[in-house]
Amino acid sequence: MTDDVTSVPKKLTKKELRILERQKVAEATIGPTLTDTYGELPLIQSKERCNHVYQLVKDLNVELQGKSFWVRGYLQSVRAKSKIAFITLRQETATIQAILHESDKVSRPMIKFAASVSKESVVDVFVTLNVPNSPVLSTTQKDVELNVEKFFVVSKALPELPFQVEDAARSDIVVKAEGSTYVNVGLETRLNTRPLDLRTPANQCIMRIQAGVGQLFREFLIERDFVEIHTPKLVGGASEGGANCFTLKYFDQDAALAQSPQTYKQMACAVAGLERVFEIGPVFRAENSNTHRHMCEFVGLDLEMTIKEHYHEVLEVFSDLFIYIFDGLKERYARELAIINEQHPFEPLKYTKPSLIVNFEEGVEMLKKAGATQDLEDDLSTENEKWLGRLVKDKYDTDFYILDKFPLGVRPFYTMPDPNDKRWSNSYDMMIRGEEIVSGAQRVHDPNLLIQRMNELGVPHESMRTYIDSFRLGALPHGGGGIGLERVVMLYLGLGNIRKASMFPRDPKRLFP
Amino acid sequence: MTDDVTSVPKKLTKKELRILERQKVAEATIGPTLTDTYGELPLIQSKERCNHVYQLVKDLNVELQGKSFWVRGYLQSVRAKSKIAFITLRQETATIQAILHESDKVSRPMIKFAASVSKESVVDVFVTLNVPNSPVLSTTQKDVELNVEKFFVVSKALPELPFQVEDAARSDIVVKAEGSTYVNVGLETRLNTRPLDLRTPANQCIMRIQAGVGQLFREFLIERDFVEIHTPKLVGGASEGGANCFTLKYFDQDAALAQSPQTYKQMACAVAGLERVFEIGPVFRAENSNTHRHMCEFVGLDLEMTIKEHYHEVLEVFSDLFIYIFDGLKERYARELAIINEQHPFEPLKYTKPSLIVNFEEGVEMLKKAGATQDLEDDLSTENEKWLGRLVKDKYDTDFYILDKFPLGVRPFYTMPDPNDKRWSNSYDMMIRGEEIVSGAQRVHDPNLLIQRMNELGVPHESMRTYIDSFRLGALPHGGGGIGLERVVMLYLGLGNIRKASMFPRDPKRLFP
Repeated sequence: MTDDVTSVPKKLTKKELRILERQKVAEATIGPTLTDTYGELPLIQSKERCNHVYQLVKDLNVELQGKSFWVRGYLQSVRAKSKIAFITLRQETATIQAILHESDKVSRPMIKFAASVSKESVVDVFVTLNVPNSPVLSTTQKDVELNVEKFFVVSKALPELPFQVEDAARSDIVVKAEGSTYVNVGLETRLNTRPLDLRTPANQCIMRIQAGVGQLFREFLIERDFVEIHTPKLVGGASEGGANCFTLKYFDQDAALAQSPQTYKQMACAVAGLERVFEIGPVFRAENSNTHRHMCEFVGLDLEMTIKEHYHEVLEVFSDLFIYIFDGLKERYARELAIINEQHPFEPLKYTKPSLIVNFEEGVEMLKKAGATQDLEDDLSTENEKWLGRLVKDKYDTDFYILDKFPLGVRPFYTMPDPNDKRWSNSYDMMIRGEEIVSGAQRVHDPNLLIQRMNELGVPHESMRTYIDSFRLGALPHGGGGIGLERVVMLYLGLGNIRKASMFPRDPKRLFP
Repeated sequence: MTDDVTSVPKKLTKKELRILERQKVAEATIGPTLTDTYGELPLIQSKERCNHVYQLVKDLNVELQGKSFWVRGYLQSVRAKSKIAFITLRQETATIQAILHESDKVSRPMIKFAASVSKESVVDVFVTLNVPNSPVLSTTQKDVELNVEKFFVVSKALPELPFQVEDAARSDIVVKAEGSTYVNVGLETRLNTRPLDLRTPANQCIMRIQAGVGQLFREFLIERDFVEIHTPKLVGGASEGGANCFTLKYFDQDAALAQSPQTYKQMACAVAGLERVFEIGPVFRAENSNTHRHMCEFVGLDLEMTIKEHYHEVLEVFSDLFIYIFDGLKERYARELAIINEQHPFEPLKYTKPSLIVNFEEGVEMLKKAGATQDLEDDLSTENEKWLGRLVKDKYDTDFYILDKFPLGVRPFYTMPDPNDKRWSNSYDMMIRGEEIVSGAQRVHDPNLLIQRMNELGVPHESMRTYIDSFRLGALPHGGGGIGLERVVMLYLGLGNIRKASMFPRDPKRLFP
């Protein structure tokens, strides 16, 4: 009987000989994995290290024909008759067909046992790779399949799962087609058992895209001399002096969870003189908003940089940054995007190089001309924001743009007022498909103007004391912004709900899992 | 009069001509920056974009002799007589000497004005680069100096600062030398005005080393197919079911701040099937410990990975990871390490390749042999931990090692028990210079064993329900660990206090700034 390492390489190195030696020891001691051919494995508890050769499903190819090795994966499905069973194994986004065929190695009870194992259990199979005559249609590995010689259960799934991964993974188009009889696994059901929901190929890829956006953000900024910082999430008094704070007792003091790294990143950049900083971290909003785009905890991609003369120096960095992120996703994550697209079809994002900047005043004009009600000095409603997104798309053929020079009245106290017109401010939002993903501005670096603005807006000085005072130490002019990571992922992928872009979302009603 | 852009390049490109055009417009409109030669600048509010040429201090070199440009920096010091003033400008870690010499461009009132500006103010100087006859000893730029033609204040520092940056930047050896009359700026004083304290070259570099450790951690793991995840910091009930939690109201529910991403990273890795995950994020401990190495909020570098047979698969990743980090710091951050070393001399870290693994039992033996009191099944006291570090250093000549197979009784409920001996567990700590920086283990992936362990340790199931139940969905065997970022930085650099390795530290008494 060929088995694991003995069947793999040709010329044995010292290490391989050692592995072989261990293998012999293992065969003598470890019980069911080697003397039996099927059953439930004892708990994997690091009793022995046999150095069995395991292969990854995604790495398998025709060149491994005839090779034997182990595979561990989720048992996605089993179809069995008396003499044969077809199983589908899944690892991350890759699936492969494995076959138990009655033979001297594979008994009928073994086939029966395999057929009895509940779906989504973790199994170990010892297999020989085979190249089938015709391609396998139902799996991602189409040119290869596996002949199973041993079949063990590593970890059993419940026989009755809250939903089937296959149902959760089905294309939106199929599920929502007229007359479809497929189960539509609702979002609440998915989120209640999120670890199961995350097993779908699309979700595996959404999480990778999320990681990718963060990685591209960092790469771009590190290349441009930004320093990564970590600012405290536990802050004295109320964060940014505002409402919508989660508050708590910090030993005998009152504390809040930071609504953003705003005040700290400013101090790091402009007062401590690090000049260019970024942070990736959680931000907390105690906002009772139950919408498709609000969460009470999300990941902020923040940056803050000194400017010499004009806050458009920051806008240029942001413009290049998003082009870098969008280009990077397209180039490095084509496979993931295709897999997501299969389940959740979406339009590829259109963007310009350099990024389009639209003046707030011009935006309001466009809206009015199109028939919308929008006051010049009010913030945009969600509806008008989306409407403007469509108008901009029609006019400029881009899904991403920067809306510049917001009314001062709708921005926080630390926003630099426009030098020429009191109605405006040196601030901007950035939009994907008509929804905000970034808010930013030049900041007030003068302590007296800062106090004046706080007074005008009725922001208490109390918990802001160390922040205000820091600008009396000499401060560099600066600006920046914060990106909502999950919003970028949701809007880039057209997911329609921010919860789908978060691993374990938090909204006013959800604290579990 | 030569000025900014007009004096810089030789052959004017289209862009430069445009800049020149802007420059002319600017000169006609912007007032004191160009028509005056000194004074206080009006607030930099993005009124105009002149595209003045600014140079970075660190980039200046003899090849720029005779060139004119602007520099913005902190005014570190001024020494003035009636006809001449020597100033030191600082940007990040770089300093340069700039001179105001009475001439047709530089008046006596201008020199007087420069001498009156408070230290640490932000200034803009228009200068011509000069190569002095003898090197400048007091600055990092030794071969070049600047002749100042214009001198403006961008942002004034208070005339009386809580401490002088020069005092805060002085070498420990000098300050602590017998008979030293230098001011010793205490840690509390520094932390109370942390943004000023962070201006010292050593602190600028400590923050960069902190960023570097995170970056090396990520690079290594991404290269090995780990996916970055973000897990919630707001968790239902008490995090990990344990004490030392900050608790708060989450709308009408009870919540806690996550003590670690433990349960979530396990679900992502082993149940959702992402297989290899890492996270960089804040962790919160409501521990009233006022020591040199505890903080109530710190940055966790967490990883979790599936294993096939044995948790030493995880240890091998950790071993290689730390070698990668230590090598990377040495190679890429030599300049920063040298600057820190100047102020805070420390021994370079010794480490082995591969990393040394010492069995807990062997460690206790070593301690006992050396005369320490240490029970075999107790955790190590801080004192014995350090003692063992010294013994290991003596025996194996390494400052970094892995202590493997801790007593089960001192580890959390989710730690996998040793399969052969109930006293032990498949768990480990990692140590730098005798202090713990990592704690990790193989985890229990079987729901029944998990419940049994929780019952044995009296951990309530209530808030752990979704976590326990997730293992009933089929779970991959796995293990991992969490690194304390600030501890690594503190111990690698021998800083002696963890607060020095954190930008804005949080301890039981400190919530500001």
